[in-house]
Amino acid sequence: MATMNDVAKLAGVSRGTVSNYINGVTVKTESQKKIRAAIAELKYIPNTAARQLKTSRSNLVVFIIPTTRTPLFSELTYKVQQDLQAHGFKMILCNSNNDIQEELEYIQMAKMQKAAGIITMSYSDLLAHVSSDLPVVSIEKQIADTISCISADNYQGGRIAAAQLHRSGAKKLLLVSRLTEKTKSNYGIRVRGFEDYCHEHQLDYYLFSAPVHEEEFYKQLDAFLHDRYAYGVDYDGIFTVADQYADFTENVLRALGVTAPKQVQIIGFDGGKMYPNQPRHISSIRQPVDKIAMKCVENLEKILSGEKVDVAPLTLLPVKFVQGQTTN
Amino acid sequence: MATMNDVAKLAGVSRGTVSNYINGVTVKTESQKKIRAAIAELKYIPNTAARQLKTSRSNLVVFIIPTTRTPLFSELTYKVQQDLQAHGFKMILCNSNNDIQEELEYIQMAKMQKAAGIITMSYSDLLAHVSSDLPVVSIEKQIADTISCISADNYQGGRIAAAQLHRSGAKKLLLVSRLTEKTKSNYGIRVRGFEDYCHEHQLDYYLFSAPVHEEEFYKQLDAFLHDRYAYGVDYDGIFTVADQYADFTENVLRALGVTAPKQVQIIGFDGGKMYPNQPRHISSIRQPVDKIAMKCVENLEKILSGEKVDVAPLTLLPVKFVQGQTTN
Repeated sequence: MATMNDVAKLAGVSRGTVSNYINGVTVKTESQKKIRAAIAELKYIPNTAARQLKTSRSNLVVFIIPTTRTPLFSELTYKVQQDLQAHGFKMILCNSNNDIQEELEYIQMAKMQKAAGIITMSYSDLLAHVSSDLPVVSIEKQIADTISCISADNYQGGRIAAAQLHRSGAKKLLLVSRLTEKTKSNYGIRVRGFEDYCHEHQLDYYLFSAPVHEEEFYKQLDAFLHDRYAYGVDYDGIFTVADQYADFTENVLRALGVTAPKQVQIIGFDGGKMYPNQPRHISSIRQPVDKIAMKCVENLEKILSGEKVDVAPLTLLPVKFVQGQTTN
Repeated sequence: MATMNDVAKLAGVSRGTVSNYINGVTVKTESQKKIRAAIAELKYIPNTAARQLKTSRSNLVVFIIPTTRTPLFSELTYKVQQDLQAHGFKMILCNSNNDIQEELEYIQMAKMQKAAGIITMSYSDLLAHVSSDLPVVSIEKQIADTISCISADNYQGGRIAAAQLHRSGAKKLLLVSRLTEKTKSNYGIRVRGFEDYCHEHQLDYYLFSAPVHEEEFYKQLDAFLHDRYAYGVDYDGIFTVADQYADFTENVLRALGVTAPKQVQIIGFDGGKMYPNQPRHISSIRQPVDKIAMKCVENLEKILSGEKVDVAPLTLLPVKFVQGQTTN
């Protein structure tokens, strides 16, 4: 049976490089290729379990996300997995359904698996449950000053949406949000950005917000839109804090005979697409998914290699307006 | 530090049951709850790596899918992960981008990790690369008679779509497919079901198909639709072998002033939704995602427990028509 030395010899690299490769430590792309080829040729199978006992850490990264079932989250899951793969890590996928009990079970599991780290998109307060020897990178929610958090610049996003509606000539603005305990950390900041821009530019707007469960929210939003647009166009510029609400709004208004972008301009937030190869439907404030994923993996690697000093507690990544079919 | 015996005592179950639970063997739901509570209370952390050396198999299941970035695939990923979790397994997520090299790397990795098994949605010929001691369950593509395959009933789906258009009064049918080396195993069967129904009922239809890359396909489909609908409604009933093509078709026709369902009825295939809580846009033939996920995990468990005799080489699960906004 082939040994690690055999692989190193055939690949023309040092045994240490092969070991790094197998342990998920970054290795030059050129060496990666050679090692991969040698492993394939020799059918070398390292004993991962034995290795884990020795290094006391696997190359598994636990990824916690509320659900993969939205365009944004499925894209983010895809990108994070591909970046982890490129860095020699494997992703254990964990859908938490936004339930703190499930999140805690996944964190417990990460400890049991001696995971290399956790990347989490969680809106619960997890601080008490993550131990200092388990690297954690958080997406969007700041868990603590000591834990690295990567987020889109939600505040600027809200401002950009207001500015775009302003520029496009909308006169009467509607801001649609759903502020609950779990969403206020991101939706709330988007709302604030939008409102600040409106105040600075003396723009009139109305805030529709209901702190309720999503299904109930859709019911209330539906009733509100029916009420306001029953006799024609009311608000002619709408920003919703997430694409799904923009999508829903566009649908309801279309059924009422009010069409975007002719009679009303609609902008959402996230900018995920249903199918990557298809045209964008809802105009949106695009989250920099590629960069968020890249930065998460980069920070995780930095923490693992002991470069804690370089990891900022909060990294805000720029967002931008993307044109769909709901604005001029 | 708490031991497995402590957990068994507190949970009021045998040590063997706790061991089964931790090793991913099915345990009664009632016992699962008690054990989980005891583990939480005692902060018991089993040494997973040591356990893996002993049992020579982890509770990790490798899930290979082309990409999580479509409504169907992100839903399937979600359901399989939740079912695996409920059965004590963890999912290692692998996006393959439909690339056989990546698929092979993931299979190699599954061997290295001593994975409990693989659930794969792959359109490559993987037979030579899976070893008999690594349980494999395939979704949709039959890899071999010896490997369990779970699929939606694509043939009946094609028939149901034709029958639905027929019943709704469409007179001139259009069938849209994209038959490539990788898609013929599923799209091809849907096409055949549709055609068989049409022949049996003497219905006229036209098959638009282009064996090209997806981006090129959209270009050709766009040109075709512009050509046929330039002077008004041509085909008044359309079935596309996947929802994304139906979505695209509806968009192009709407821009041409042809609206569904008034002037044309459109049915897709898959029935995934962009957001779970929102109304369905495209009428579709719905894949039984819940049942596919459940059956995959069930068959994997059967294989692991040695019940090979019960695992059928091919399980076809029924599909059904679901009403969206593109049919009457």
